[in-house]
Amino acid sequence: MDELKGRILKEGHVISSEILNVDSFINHQVDPEFMEKVGIEIAEHFKDKGITKVATIESSGIAPALFTAKALSVPLIILKKQASKILNENLYQTEVTSFTTKKSYELSLSGKFVTENDHVLIVDDFLADGEAAIGALRLIRKAHGTVAGVGAMIDKSFQPGADKLREQGIDVYSLAVIKSLENSEIIFE
Amino acid sequence: MDELKGRILKEGHVISSEILNVDSFINHQVDPEFMEKVGIEIAEHFKDKGITKVATIESSGIAPALFTAKALSVPLIILKKQASKILNENLYQTEVTSFTTKKSYELSLSGKFVTENDHVLIVDDFLADGEAAIGALRLIRKAHGTVAGVGAMIDKSFQPGADKLREQGIDVYSLAVIKSLENSEIIFE
Repeated sequence: MDELKGRILKEGHVISSEILNVDSFINHQVDPEFMEKVGIEIAEHFKDKGITKVATIESSGIAPALFTAKALSVPLIILKKQASKILNENLYQTEVTSFTTKKSYELSLSGKFVTENDHVLIVDDFLADGEAAIGALRLIRKAHGTVAGVGAMIDKSFQPGADKLREQGIDVYSLAVIKSLENSEIIFE
Repeated sequence: MDELKGRILKEGHVISSEILNVDSFINHQVDPEFMEKVGIEIAEHFKDKGITKVATIESSGIAPALFTAKALSVPLIILKKQASKILNENLYQTEVTSFTTKKSYELSLSGKFVTENDHVLIVDDFLADGEAAIGALRLIRKAHGTVAGVGAMIDKSFQPGADKLREQGIDVYSLAVIKSLENSEIIFE
């Protein structure tokens, strides 16, 4: 998606060879018109896949995922990050360790919202080491749903996330693929 | 907003005399079409107030706030919850204690995104004791912005949030005002 690549080049800040800050239009400040175009673009790729729900991980994936769900006319499920395990017979949880912060949390999904009839598209802002997306995938499968694919705004392809997902047979679609952030330079694939 | 009240009656679960669970269409699962109507309705009330930005607190306020920002054609600012104070010369922080969890966190706003020229509308899903909204108000003022008002989907008017904001001269607009959840019954004002 050329508009996304242009904004990454114009507004992104390379923090290190692994971290790109895009908080002026994706994470901290969000441009709703632009984010709607992102959602429409992700939805377009998956529109014939029989998707019944979109899922994302709170909180920076919510904006692109909400517009993807709107474009597909399906509900959005927000997977919650919780500090500790909660005992509840209809709540699925799985432990995820964040690559950026090295902290672990329990990703949670109520069994009320995903069932064996659901075919779920996971949408997030970044795909990096893939731990959050794979955690989401585990949760959807625990709830007996199937995974239709993963849509991401930015794939940092020098990190293993997309490959790990594709090895599991998952259709991964990213709007911008960054192959390097070395020497403070953003290089697309 | 009659559609919101209808859905609260149909899908809401009263957990206690103070807590209403609406996770099937607001918090955990989100209906994008309905949420867009919510955003349009909040935007309509504030459309002549010269709003330059919408702000919300992560994460359940993001969906209604994103559609409000879209309807007003302004950016959305997502105020971040952080566990601890971060030293950064251009980052504003203020401590907020959650009524529901009793836990405290640092609400954060980068000074890049709100300046003295900004007139900011705060949007959230619930208005209860008002601590999150008042924290957001403090942050916007720390960044030298002005506050145009507070828009909420659900005001639990038996809790003091809306009154505390109005005492400060803030225009508070809620789409559904609940005056009681006693005896597991939802009573609107």
